Amino acid sequence: MRVIILRLGHRYERDKRISTHIGLVARAFGADGIIISDTNDSSVKESIIDVRDRFGGEFSVEMGQKWQSVLKQWKVMDGEIIHLTMYGIPLPEVIEKIRDSQKNKLIIIGASKVPRDVYEIADYNVSITNQPHSEVGALAIFLDYLFKGEEFRLKFKNAKMEVIPSERGKTVRDLTAGKE
Amino acid sequence: MRVIILRLGHRYERDKRISTHIGLVARAFGADGIIISDTNDSSVKESIIDVRDRFGGEFSVEMGQKWQSVLKQWKVMDGEIIHLTMYGIPLPEVIEKIRDSQKNKLIIIGASKVPRDVYEIADYNVSITNQPHSEVGALAIFLDYLFKGEEFRLKFKNAKMEVIPSERGKTVRDLTAGKE
Repeated sequence: MRVIILRLGHRYERDKRISTHIGLVARAFGADGIIISDTNDSSVKESIIDVRDRFGGEFSVEMGQKWQSVLKQWKVMDGEIIHLTMYGIPLPEVIEKIRDSQKNKLIIIGASKVPRDVYEIADYNVSITNQPHSEVGALAIFLDYLFKGEEFRLKFKNAKMEVIPSERGKTVRDLTAGKE
Repeated sequence: MRVIILRLGHRYERDKRISTHIGLVARAFGADGIIISDTNDSSVKESIIDVRDRFGGEFSVEMGQKWQSVLKQWKVMDGEIIHLTMYGIPLPEVIEKIRDSQKNKLIIIGASKVPRDVYEIADYNVSITNQPHSEVGALAIFLDYLFKGEEFRLKFKNAKMEVIPSERGKTVRDLTAGKE
């Protein structure tokens, strides 16, 4: 099962840091990649790729596609489309069905106003509470529930550095030491 | 048990939206308030209060205190201090102990570089994975684990509006209708 995030409506400059956080949460919580549609704000891509290069894994970052074509392609390939929105059905009511289907999943995260069509095309409109808060927080909770807390056990291949958990301070292991 | 977020190192303009997201996640996931230390960036406070006024509850927002005095006061009152950091002990290893203590909890969320002292003063340095991602995502996961998914069952008093979950589109109930 592949899990890809579609970041919709990214606004240049204004959404730079939020979209970067979304990409980093997606990677850290076990998604396979992110598509940031309708923009070419390369600073977001660079920040995410920089983390991947240091901390490992194969997380992909794509930009520049139109969201309509991403959704069309996903439908053609019989993937599931899940739109996170505070107006949707509460996560606990749908997560088992979503998890059990084993279909590839496209998780849509809106920035500015989400077009009406997205609500219609999505297989699920899912709420992470019906309160206004944060698309970053919503994505973290969604992936934690989808993968049942797997983020705490993930290992990333080809990492150059690794954090060793410690009670106080910072311990980082350099994994390139001794390698050419 | 009171749960208060301490947002540390907020940088004017740069952190405006991230700090706002932190406040909104804190509220939506059942924390009692947020202290944004060492700043008077009132736009963050206004955004959070605006959501509270419309969607209800008694979430508090304080600004302008120095972080050192917040921590000192918390120690005096025998509260627990929990610092969320990617360098800390994984959440699943400590959450039961934190939950069971029933002490008031101050959750520290850093923006820019967190002073060494914070790691020393904290009762727990807790990681939400040891990967770099987002303080917003980290806070959402921490509160979801602390309150065991209670955010999906919370009701907010004195709300003026309420979202009714729906499979497609947006349904909002006006709770002021018929009231003076």
